[in-house]
Amino acid sequence: MGGVKKIAILGSTGSIGQQALDVIRASPNEVQVVALTGGKNLELLERQISEFQPKMFCSSVKPDFSYGGEFLSMEEIASHPEVDLVIVATSGKAGLSPTLAALKASKMVALASKEVMVMAGEIVVREASLRQAQIIPVDSEHSAIWQCLRGEEDKPQRLFLTASGGPFHRYSQSQLSKVTPGQALHHPIWKMGRKVTIDSATLMNKGLEVIEAHWLFSFPFDSIEILIHPQSIVHSIVEFWDGSLKAQLSSPDMRLPIQYALSYPQRWTNSELPRLDWNKIQSLNFEPVDYDRFPCLKLALDAGKLGGTYPAALCAADEVAVELFLDHKISFTHIARIVQRTLEQHQNIAQPSLEGILSADNWAREYATNWRPK
Amino acid sequence: MGGVKKIAILGSTGSIGQQALDVIRASPNEVQVVALTGGKNLELLERQISEFQPKMFCSSVKPDFSYGGEFLSMEEIASHPEVDLVIVATSGKAGLSPTLAALKASKMVALASKEVMVMAGEIVVREASLRQAQIIPVDSEHSAIWQCLRGEEDKPQRLFLTASGGPFHRYSQSQLSKVTPGQALHHPIWKMGRKVTIDSATLMNKGLEVIEAHWLFSFPFDSIEILIHPQSIVHSIVEFWDGSLKAQLSSPDMRLPIQYALSYPQRWTNSELPRLDWNKIQSLNFEPVDYDRFPCLKLALDAGKLGGTYPAALCAADEVAVELFLDHKISFTHIARIVQRTLEQHQNIAQPSLEGILSADNWAREYATNWRPK
Repeated sequence: MGGVKKIAILGSTGSIGQQALDVIRASPNEVQVVALTGGKNLELLERQISEFQPKMFCSSVKPDFSYGGEFLSMEEIASHPEVDLVIVATSGKAGLSPTLAALKASKMVALASKEVMVMAGEIVVREASLRQAQIIPVDSEHSAIWQCLRGEEDKPQRLFLTASGGPFHRYSQSQLSKVTPGQALHHPIWKMGRKVTIDSATLMNKGLEVIEAHWLFSFPFDSIEILIHPQSIVHSIVEFWDGSLKAQLSSPDMRLPIQYALSYPQRWTNSELPRLDWNKIQSLNFEPVDYDRFPCLKLALDAGKLGGTYPAALCAADEVAVELFLDHKISFTHIARIVQRTLEQHQNIAQPSLEGILSADNWAREYATNWRPK
Repeated sequence: MGGVKKIAILGSTGSIGQQALDVIRASPNEVQVVALTGGKNLELLERQISEFQPKMFCSSVKPDFSYGGEFLSMEEIASHPEVDLVIVATSGKAGLSPTLAALKASKMVALASKEVMVMAGEIVVREASLRQAQIIPVDSEHSAIWQCLRGEEDKPQRLFLTASGGPFHRYSQSQLSKVTPGQALHHPIWKMGRKVTIDSATLMNKGLEVIEAHWLFSFPFDSIEILIHPQSIVHSIVEFWDGSLKAQLSSPDMRLPIQYALSYPQRWTNSELPRLDWNKIQSLNFEPVDYDRFPCLKLALDAGKLGGTYPAALCAADEVAVELFLDHKISFTHIARIVQRTLEQHQNIAQPSLEGILSADNWAREYATNWRPK
């Protein structure tokens, strides 16, 4: 590519988007922000725009401010000739169409929105391969695997995604049923958006990550395993065919995988990123995952293996159920029940088109909104 | 290189040499053994020769058997046109001259003899660079670092060599003074030769490894750290400038790094190599090293930093002192005292020639043999 990378951030007002801008502030000479897009938080978007003066911008509600930049759709921005790399940090399905637009234009995509891969992995991977466009993972687990695979010639034998276990890792079934949104929003390690924080508490998030890893690394589900690692220092592990394993470690801070996606193939020195202090690490702990207490994980793995429109229905039902839980309308354990029921009722389409995926999403949203566990 | 790799094993009757042959037995179609060399164990050498039928062989005492192969010196074998890769698994300084001969002939060298790098790192690295010959580490720690560096463009920030801590990791000073050879030869994790087992108990071995890492990876001493990790599952760790770390893990089995040195850049499936079982790993523990109780470590680091002929004098004095300890002539804690005294009395030569190094070795051997702590 050469020279300063020109970057578009889709979802710059979200948690990942804001941290991406932090990373860019620390290495201002390496990249140029040419586009920012936000949702409804126009106040923050306006502040970001006034700081970075991007040539293009977009927001989901009509902006009440103007400046020299051009208002374009996310798809127009993602495929714009002025853009080298698109950070997809939108939430839910919003990133899907812009990601495909970026790949069609052979852009490098730094993918922070796992829904894109979960809903439409087959289409996304096919498009990337067709256009020789590179997808760089931003999720800490996938970034870890990607870092460990760097320079290796052969496909590995197994992938181990680590999971902190979330705030309810030691809770019994009956304790889980009484969990409040306030408790669930308090993740022990990671600071993240609300939806992904709840998904981390149900372990749905880990299931979505397995589906994402399946597509990103063209890897069979049966060779992707999950290890509970409460400290979140080992971000994932790759096992090779000779029995050697590589792990990637760091302080749990999303700015590191975000920066790696931007700096790749280099690594930038960034004194603001925390360092692991081995004087403070006495042990790194690992334990197997408990599928019984965390049924969302199993639901996600099953949907991933079934394929078709099941993963899209899973995502949609989960998004609705998490919202209902945060609104105090259902209990924590009802999230899994709503997702399960939606999947049971879903009419799958194998090898769906984008339209098929979006219609499954619509159907599942409606079903999950209207059905309540007794 | 292409095709079947033609391999010479220098020191095939030692611990590493025998394990190299185990690895080759498991992947017989990948490599061809064209030369074997042993020391005094002619019985084992003859058995190995009758199994592998190498074109060339060598032994330090005159062989009492004959077959179709040619008896050559280790230097002739190491530089022979029929050889692609030389495994240097001799003990002590014996590997030095054949390693240089192999590098001069632009052979790939799989280096298991750390004394070669410790005694003559500057000369060895210069020769390898001049002839564009690749040195592949075989020590588990250095193999780990080499695996973690694979594919990375930039030099890392820090290297962490892990150390099991050896059998006396928790011993007090007064307990250490009473250690017997029998206890010291019983390493908790690794099965190795006698000399390196004692060096592991004094932590001299870890000091030699730091010097080896310094030369292998052109890395400053101050950026190479040691972490005690009793389980010996994490074999070493590399920290990059962005705060990301990579670790290499496996069951502690020397056959894995040996095989990687042979298979590189591929990795061979080998069902005989043990697999890490995450159901059995509940924690990986780390703690800082105690320089006070293990003075050999500090002596080695100091000798490495001073450079010149100090590291050669260190190696020689240690070899003598370990032999004296195994012969029940000195106590365990006297090993460090003999090495220290020898280094204190040593007249250093900066940037020595090979002759200067060998003469320092001679002098230190004599000094260490004759001086006794009171």
